[in-house]
Amino acid sequence: MQMIEQLCSDLESIRQKRPLVHNITNFVVMNETANAILCIGALPIMSHAAQEVEEMVGIASALVLNIGTLQPDWVDAMELAGKRANQMGIPVVLDPVGAGATRLRTDSAKRLLERVRISIVRGNAGEVAALAGIASEVRGVESMGASQSPEQIAQRFASAFGSVAAVTGPVDVVSDGSRTARISNGDAMLGKVVGTGCMSTVVVGSFAGVQQDPFTAAVGGLAAFGIAGEIAAGISGEKPGTFHTELYNALAAIGAEDIRTRARIELIG
Amino acid sequence: MQMIEQLCSDLESIRQKRPLVHNITNFVVMNETANAILCIGALPIMSHAAQEVEEMVGIASALVLNIGTLQPDWVDAMELAGKRANQMGIPVVLDPVGAGATRLRTDSAKRLLERVRISIVRGNAGEVAALAGIASEVRGVESMGASQSPEQIAQRFASAFGSVAAVTGPVDVVSDGSRTARISNGDAMLGKVVGTGCMSTVVVGSFAGVQQDPFTAAVGGLAAFGIAGEIAAGISGEKPGTFHTELYNALAAIGAEDIRTRARIELIG
Amino acid sequence: MQMIEQLCSDLESIRQKRPLVHNITNFVVMNETANAILCIGALPIMSHAAQEVEEMVGIASALVLNIGTLQPDWVDAMELAGKRANQMGIPVVLDPVGAGATRLRTDSAKRLLERVRISIVRGNAGEVAALAGIASEVRGVESMGASQSPEQIAQRFASAFGSVAAVTGPVDVVSDGSRTARISNGDAMLGKVVGTGCMSTVVVGSFAGVQQDPFTAAVGGLAAFGIAGEIAAGISGEKPGTFHTELYNALAAIGAEDIRTRARIELIG
Repeated sequence: MQMIEQLCSDLESIRQKRPLVHNITNFVVMNETANAILCIGALPIMSHAAQEVEEMVGIASALVLNIGTLQPDWVDAMELAGKRANQMGIPVVLDPVGAGATRLRTDSAKRLLERVRISIVRGNAGEVAALAGIASEVRGVESMGASQSPEQIAQRFASAFGSVAAVTGPVDVVSDGSRTARISNGDAMLGKVVGTGCMSTVVVGSFAGVQQDPFTAAVGGLAAFGIAGEIAAGISGEKPGTFHTELYNALAAIGAEDIRTRARIELIG
Repeated sequence: MQMIEQLCSDLESIRQKRPLVHNITNFVVMNETANAILCIGALPIMSHAAQEVEEMVGIASALVLNIGTLQPDWVDAMELAGKRANQMGIPVVLDPVGAGATRLRTDSAKRLLERVRISIVRGNAGEVAALAGIASEVRGVESMGASQSPEQIAQRFASAFGSVAAVTGPVDVVSDGSRTARISNGDAMLGKVVGTGCMSTVVVGSFAGVQQDPFTAAVGGLAAFGIAGEIAAGISGEKPGTFHTELYNALAAIGAEDIRTRARIELIG
Repeated sequence: MQMIEQLCSDLESIRQKRPLVHNITNFVVMNETANAILCIGALPIMSHAAQEVEEMVGIASALVLNIGTLQPDWVDAMELAGKRANQMGIPVVLDPVGAGATRLRTDSAKRLLERVRISIVRGNAGEVAALAGIASEVRGVESMGASQSPEQIAQRFASAFGSVAAVTGPVDVVSDGSRTARISNGDAMLGKVVGTGCMSTVVVGSFAGVQQDPFTAAVGGLAAFGIAGEIAAGISGEKPGTFHTELYNALAAIGAEDIRTRARIELIG
């Protein structure tokens, strides 16, 4: 399958080119996402001060905005960084953590979607549904269900905002409005460690740093991350501490052969 | 023993009901405490912006306030969140990290105790003593000793503030002023990893999310956490990195049989 | 060799005296650096509020300032804390994370060097070169090369600022302007985990908490950290998650025998 060979090629590019991925992200996962970026082969930089984000974006290959542990001045910095990324033509990936749970989160995500050209939004079904105007329930940062299927949510979001929507869950769905893919990789253990959603976002950001088509980057990043989760769970069993450690090991070790053997990507339209 | 069966039942409730535990906590342990909550079976949310804490508390089953890496605007948010929790009738657990070491910490903890109805305070002997007006020494965030026993400190604090005091150390002591318990679980390895005190606080918060009696919740949370520490140390030996990983594994795996076999809880009045 | 016996003696002093090391540091590595301090045998305190840093420094044996994830108000707190440390005569260690990458970082590091007497600066070649006025490239927080050798960079920095310069890389170089040492310990795996540079800085800070000569403290801290990295890599192989865990284990376990067997310290002038 062509998509899988592209994924293998993009993973190789990450490790050759080492794209710098600039993150403005939440306090809970700063270390974990930086390590995920480093393990997959890219270079992380975490920087949020309004005084330097534009300059830092200026040397980056992708920008990831994550609204967990949000405070209002950080949204200002995200907007500045996002606009600079747009000027430079580098991709912006948004993780709308907790959108739908509080007004601050929903409004901040919407403001970023209005003022910054976002290439990819990666969230759970509840978060993406909330932004797409579809009834859903978000409890804290957990999706408790939505009134439409992940496929419908992704397609409606993509059509409404002109961004690729990457909706993760038991099965991940990526849509750019015209193309839609299902990725059936991953493991239930990913729900047992804090920040794996945020980690999947930065792996997508790492792929977007070398792959110009955001749909392909999102599919590739989610498939690679899901496969790493499967490999890690194969070693850890149901031990979340061990799984967390093995997830980094798997992200660093994953190669073309793992992807060809394990990727379960289905283009559905 | 009735207390131990209650603990088993509460642990089962956490895993069935998955209470949302809202944390306003320090930067050092945000990831670690969120993972501890997830491992024991509850759902963590970390959120500190004054603009959203009341709304976030509105969907939570317990609120944990932790004053490590304190800055003044966070105390304002803690007060807002605490008052909302009081209105809703959900428990508020306070971890007065470093109270007694600096005026900012001592005064902030006192302000929260004055303005918010705190169900449980979980700290080391030095911190709780400092708040109870008992001579003690706190060096950074370490208790270097106090002029009274943990039992006296816990009882005096509980009587003075009408909160349950959970004073942790080689032996943990919990008192609500009328009832006092000693919990002799735990392992010296818990002192070799940063943030295990804060993790014990959020496990207490998770128990408080399902158990209305704060004395029972504090005893249960500390016993469960201490037993997890024993199990982890049995695997790791004196390796702190490995112990940290195994502590999450043990929190996730701990069950009624471990509690019945290992709990060392003594009601002393 | 006299230096190695001094290192063994200083490591023993850290574990006997347990110096309190006060850190104002970045969000990405707060937990990791606190654990590194605890593992080597010292006591960490993380505190950044202008309202308490002077008081907290007042009970510390060393102060570490780290400008990763910088925001301007934190620099104010760093200056306050640094000046108090200078009054008390305790060593100040600066980690200029990302100096050379953005104006905010370069200017903040320079401001601290001007207003606070810094005992030791620990950075990569690009960062230290940028502060010494030597052409270099810093991409995010990575050194991409400099126009002079690490030895020249360290010596020029030390002469210009009157601080010990500790320039880390494949081979670490420490200079106080008159004495210069090369430390050839460490392992390539240290580049596969986020924050190991910051961790080496706090281990240097722990040594400075018991060793009055900053040159000796910097050499000792970097050698001990590098040796811990070698031991960890001997167990983990190329698995970054496992290496991270084993690095803490090794910092806690490292003893005089490891140092005598493994230290590769060369005084070159």
